[in-house]
Amino acid sequence: MAEKSRLDAVITLAQHRGFVFPSGDIYGGTRSAWDYGPLGVELKENIKRQWWNTFVRGRADMVGLDSAVILPTAVWKASGHVKVFSDPLTESLVTHKRYRADHLFEAYEAKHGHPPENGLADIPDPDHPDKVGQWTEIRQMSGLLKTYLGVVDNEEGLHYLRPETAQGIFTDFPAVVQAARKKPPFGIGQIGKAFRNEITPGNFIFRTREFEQMEIEFFVEPGSDDEWQQTWMDLCWAWFIDLGMTPENIRWFEHPKEKLAHYSKRTVDIEYKFEFAGNEWGELMGVANRTDYDLSVHAEASGKDMSYFDQAKNERYIPYVIEPSFGLTRALMAFLVDAYHEEEVPNAKGGVDKRTVLRLDPRLAPVKVAVLPLSRNEALSPLARSVGDELRASWNVDFDDSGAIGRRYRRQDEIGTPFCVTVDFDSLEDNAVTVRDRDTMKQERVPLETLHAYLAERLRGA
Amino acid sequence: MAEKSRLDAVITLAQHRGFVFPSGDIYGGTRSAWDYGPLGVELKENIKRQWWNTFVRGRADMVGLDSAVILPTAVWKASGHVKVFSDPLTESLVTHKRYRADHLFEAYEAKHGHPPENGLADIPDPDHPDKVGQWTEIRQMSGLLKTYLGVVDNEEGLHYLRPETAQGIFTDFPAVVQAARKKPPFGIGQIGKAFRNEITPGNFIFRTREFEQMEIEFFVEPGSDDEWQQTWMDLCWAWFIDLGMTPENIRWFEHPKEKLAHYSKRTVDIEYKFEFAGNEWGELMGVANRTDYDLSVHAEASGKDMSYFDQAKNERYIPYVIEPSFGLTRALMAFLVDAYHEEEVPNAKGGVDKRTVLRLDPRLAPVKVAVLPLSRNEALSPLARSVGDELRASWNVDFDDSGAIGRRYRRQDEIGTPFCVTVDFDSLEDNAVTVRDRDTMKQERVPLETLHAYLAERLRGA
Repeated sequence: MAEKSRLDAVITLAQHRGFVFPSGDIYGGTRSAWDYGPLGVELKENIKRQWWNTFVRGRADMVGLDSAVILPTAVWKASGHVKVFSDPLTESLVTHKRYRADHLFEAYEAKHGHPPENGLADIPDPDHPDKVGQWTEIRQMSGLLKTYLGVVDNEEGLHYLRPETAQGIFTDFPAVVQAARKKPPFGIGQIGKAFRNEITPGNFIFRTREFEQMEIEFFVEPGSDDEWQQTWMDLCWAWFIDLGMTPENIRWFEHPKEKLAHYSKRTVDIEYKFEFAGNEWGELMGVANRTDYDLSVHAEASGKDMSYFDQAKNERYIPYVIEPSFGLTRALMAFLVDAYHEEEVPNAKGGVDKRTVLRLDPRLAPVKVAVLPLSRNEALSPLARSVGDELRASWNVDFDDSGAIGRRYRRQDEIGTPFCVTVDFDSLEDNAVTVRDRDTMKQERVPLETLHAYLAERLRGA
Repeated sequence: MAEKSRLDAVITLAQHRGFVFPSGDIYGGTRSAWDYGPLGVELKENIKRQWWNTFVRGRADMVGLDSAVILPTAVWKASGHVKVFSDPLTESLVTHKRYRADHLFEAYEAKHGHPPENGLADIPDPDHPDKVGQWTEIRQMSGLLKTYLGVVDNEEGLHYLRPETAQGIFTDFPAVVQAARKKPPFGIGQIGKAFRNEITPGNFIFRTREFEQMEIEFFVEPGSDDEWQQTWMDLCWAWFIDLGMTPENIRWFEHPKEKLAHYSKRTVDIEYKFEFAGNEWGELMGVANRTDYDLSVHAEASGKDMSYFDQAKNERYIPYVIEPSFGLTRALMAFLVDAYHEEEVPNAKGGVDKRTVLRLDPRLAPVKVAVLPLSRNEALSPLARSVGDELRASWNVDFDDSGAIGRRYRRQDEIGTPFCVTVDFDSLEDNAVTVRDRDTMKQERVPLETLHAYLAERLRGA
């Protein structure tokens, strides 16, 4: 990785192999979103499933929810989004490109060690460093995407696409408490799309206008909130580590008190070392203590009772909320970057080959097993196909009978397939196949009748 | 089910038990969408998983995709949606309620056996049958929901939310062919949200402005399209039957030639007998032969080559497309209605009890196992909890220690839980539990050490 950054190499691989495509590419794209190709959608589904099984199905104190993207405007008024969910926009007088002023300030501070004393007047144009302070006045731009339901485009029809899944959880809180018979401490988990009118989408799938979140709102008794925030911080960190994230590539970032969102008592993020141009670390997820802010404002605005009555203690209270909020597509990007390795390995001729390998945890790998007949052949192909069909009932299986076997191994390494099963001419005699391990590249002869069990043992939970 | 229709009973159950909530209910709702509660989201995920495993992961000739909701406006211009995707709107001069004129005509025809000869002039107001022909002129209303990306609400920023997931598949067709190295016959499957500005959302979750689809676009050589359409019709029908749908409650509906959508050579729907007021059957899914319409219009509009070059035959062609398109939320509603049974069962006192039971296929059931300590007790609870925790690693498990055991069984029957595991005082001695089967209500004593295997055998694939 001399000339190219690791991040660039991952982006190239991801687009080339069909993890991610620019959305609407044949029409020049939207710059707002990305499409997840055959491998990307499997990787994304695997991340969702691990998250859901760990945090929702796997916990007695959690239930799931899937609330709508388009909620009544009253929700976003009460939550404060209509009023304060906006970004500071400025435009370069030189290039007429638009920027987020806070991002310009952060870049300045990262370079100079202190914030710009005179605001925009100190900031050079990123494309023309000699032009300084050539900016329009900052104005606030709403991050909400609007749409109109019904017959006419008027106030009555005005609705917003949700910028976070969380508010659907808050507005359904009384319904869930009643239907699921849950009491604090308990939480509601949700995975779904959210939309934000970002001024400058960019950094591949890191900042997009359409994205997916995995969010938990965990309702606790006031007073126990600090402790529960720590508990959830530990659980979230452990989830990434358990799925193979390199500990040195993630870190905690504590939001300074003066920069907290309007609803937050304390927010702590997990950041990943993406090594973007300009800033090394990027937010993966955050654990916020939203206090009783959301339930209180919705109680006030809707007139509904959002409190919980603790029968044992004979006490009524509005629960505090600890919110672990994950960017799904950011997690996907981090797992990809983290798994990416280029290495030199000995080849059969006594020299070395270069290989690219995605060391994804087998639970996350988009393809679990590749079935490779040694050559395209009338005798091998039917056997190989039947092996593939049998394994396909359990896992996502690739079948590849094109070209040299070495090249096919490399292709599977590149997409992180944990196991390659090679069907060769001996297989026709000994009813066995060769199983190659992605990481060790060791090969083992396995009888066909125990192949499924052999793989199941090694793909447990995948 | 004397006074209440089966459908009404299902809707009541679904809302009461937390399958489905009206979206944004505390603010009076949007009428546009529904939220899926703790049980609904599990049922929905199970349907998605079965569909994906059957049609995408389970087939060597299919790959998956997850394309964006917001695509460039050029996509919707080329596809014809901007021009022709609209519904005929009329408004009652009596009540000022809005209606789809085609729905009014259909209702008239269903009642009178022939279409209204004089159009709207023959149609009475649904709320005032004595007022006939009191309607505004019909005007076409676009079914597309629009939004604005970027800084200003102008033409440049105008985008549409997708009304079907299909177009993202068509625009990504060349990218998928290249990345996944696939050749016709092969297909691309996708599950995701779509949005339509319906004039009259209604019939519970049947017609909503925000909904989910499961779509396949299957690319074939022209000439083989009729046969492939039949193949996919058979596969789709078999999928519902395999998951327990009552054959008598579904039927095929062939779209009349003169009413086919602009892109279709032939469309055949599977309908479910929902027994709505006014129309008995409702569309569950359709299999359309979209010919080469979509790839051709996108090729022309984008200037990109959307053809496939068959190396073996040395032929270049634009593939025909067979589209099996499922409404996910409609499938969920049909599975719920179909599984719903009220029955009388003998009770311990020699009399009969009424029970409501959802006979959902175990693969679809939102809760697989309920763990029920016979009573809330210091000795039973810890054992029951540890049994629950162990099973929770494999399945979605409910734990309920409230009230009489009979009532708890009924509660689990009502949500379709296939197995109840009761921990009683004998369990402390014999290390065994009682497993009750939802459908037969038979109870069996099972040793704790074989409990997991006992359930795994009966929950295979779930």
